[in-house]
Amino acid sequence: MKRTPGPECASVVLVRVRFGETDLMGIVHHAAYLSWFEVGRVEYLRRRGIDALDWAARGVHLPVIEASLRYRRSARFDERLTVETRLAELGRASVGFEYRVLRPSPAGDELLTEGATLLACVNDRHVPTRLPADVANALLGAETRPRAASEV
Amino acid sequence: MKRTPGPECASVVLVRVRFGETDLMGIVHHAAYLSWFEVGRVEYLRRRGIDALDWAARGVHLPVIEASLRYRRSARFDERLTVETRLAELGRASVGFEYRVLRPSPAGDELLTEGATLLACVNDRHVPTRLPADVANALLGAETRPRAASEV
Amino acid sequence: MKRTPGPECASVVLVRVRFGETDLMGIVHHAAYLSWFEVGRVEYLRRRGIDALDWAARGVHLPVIEASLRYRRSARFDERLTVETRLAELGRASVGFEYRVLRPSPAGDELLTEGATLLACVNDRHVPTRLPADVANALLGAETRPRAASEV
Amino acid sequence: MKRTPGPECASVVLVRVRFGETDLMGIVHHAAYLSWFEVGRVEYLRRRGIDALDWAARGVHLPVIEASLRYRRSARFDERLTVETRLAELGRASVGFEYRVLRPSPAGDELLTEGATLLACVNDRHVPTRLPADVANALLGAETRPRAASEV
Repeated sequence: MKRTPGPECASVVLVRVRFGETDLMGIVHHAAYLSWFEVGRVEYLRRRGIDALDWAARGVHLPVIEASLRYRRSARFDERLTVETRLAELGRASVGFEYRVLRPSPAGDELLTEGATLLACVNDRHVPTRLPADVANALLGAETRPRAASEV
Repeated sequence: MKRTPGPECASVVLVRVRFGETDLMGIVHHAAYLSWFEVGRVEYLRRRGIDALDWAARGVHLPVIEASLRYRRSARFDERLTVETRLAELGRASVGFEYRVLRPSPAGDELLTEGATLLACVNDRHVPTRLPADVANALLGAETRPRAASEV
Repeated sequence: MKRTPGPECASVVLVRVRFGETDLMGIVHHAAYLSWFEVGRVEYLRRRGIDALDWAARGVHLPVIEASLRYRRSARFDERLTVETRLAELGRASVGFEYRVLRPSPAGDELLTEGATLLACVNDRHVPTRLPADVANALLGAETRPRAASEV
Repeated sequence: MKRTPGPECASVVLVRVRFGETDLMGIVHHAAYLSWFEVGRVEYLRRRGIDALDWAARGVHLPVIEASLRYRRSARFDERLTVETRLAELGRASVGFEYRVLRPSPAGDELLTEGATLLACVNDRHVPTRLPADVANALLGAETRPRAASEV
């Protein structure tokens, strides 16, 4: 049974473009966005009290099994960007996330890149395994933790 | 008009998994494959006499505008893998490639990851522009250059 | 003439360890620190009103010509770390920075990695050139800009 | 007791500059060299029959504890470069390597970057531990394995 995530199943994190993430075209290298999706996904989990390392210690792993990206506008060095992560679907042994990388602007945020990843839930022997109920419930819920005060 | 690439529109390159490409799951981080696709694509161009830098100097750029990846098996540190790159479609102002990352094996190569990228042809002002005819012809052709003797 | 930087010549930025920055030893890959040093250096400049891109448009570039790192303790996935950047020396055509990556702790910050980079000031033709006076003055001064509110 | 490595304690590997290794200055990002040093070091070990993964399974790890780099000339996209790795010193529980990244040229190779790393030998609990005798002997010896036929 797939459960449908609601509007509360979203989190946001900021990233600042690093010099080493640019390439000789002068823009952010397209592979960097996959890392930012991951930053967004980890933030999504953290804001719901899910610690990926604790989880791994319990023998639950979530490798990426599919990813897709659509690049609409390019980003440049030192820009501060918003990564929105939304739970798209929750299966028995899989989790789907959708992402949008935006350039914040008073005139309306600009969409730079959007994409999705599908993660499989596997155990220590890489065998697909059911998502633990507490993890599934946390994934389907709203944020329960504040964002960490910080800076980028 | 889209032209249909034939079986000669394929090239192969080897990559060796670097330590820094692994992550704490002990396997290759999923973003590394996007870089390997790029290695494969550059090799595809090189084997057909297309020099990306010369091309850029002529004001022709090919940013990635879409990418997708399906991860089937994981790769590990120090493995030697094969990246197959195939021209999938050639539009007036776009080029589509497909990729397969394989683990060579006497018993039959194992498919680790497959994917695709779509590239737009743009000029120096990032405006979509027609692919130059000589480039389009080279892309549609067979390899004309030997692989560089090397080692990884 | 080398000018001696004072205690006001220091800035701090936070980084959160990304999953892709770890390696199969389960710790942060040693090359990641060089990128974090760069994040710290860019923050040092930003907090003093120096925009690296504007600067580049004026034909002033600061490539790294020497780097050194001493790794004392390892960092792990998802940790929030502090990068301290201090101006160490300012020559006619070079700038030296020193860095410390720390794990904040109520019982006293733990030093993870320390290091230094030397940057040369070069023009568009890669010829060493004198640091513009306004840039030198800003480098030698205290922070004039607030940190950006953000999160990692 | 430190043993002095002889001239046979050197190995060479080729790397091809990847697009994603460049930055907006149009040259190879300085952090990439640290990864290439690692590629060189792994090749040094491999050519002497030392498999880093087998070694790790025996509880012997070699994290980098110091690194230094001097950048002399910049490298560009798609160049084929030579990484020379030389054993510099072998302590009871440490190994020092030196590296040179060169641009091969008929008129004489050009030195791009040189550097060094010091590695500590530690056990699974990160406690410094004596290098196993068979590993120390292999490190001090000449190459015993051919380079893998390949391409970059």
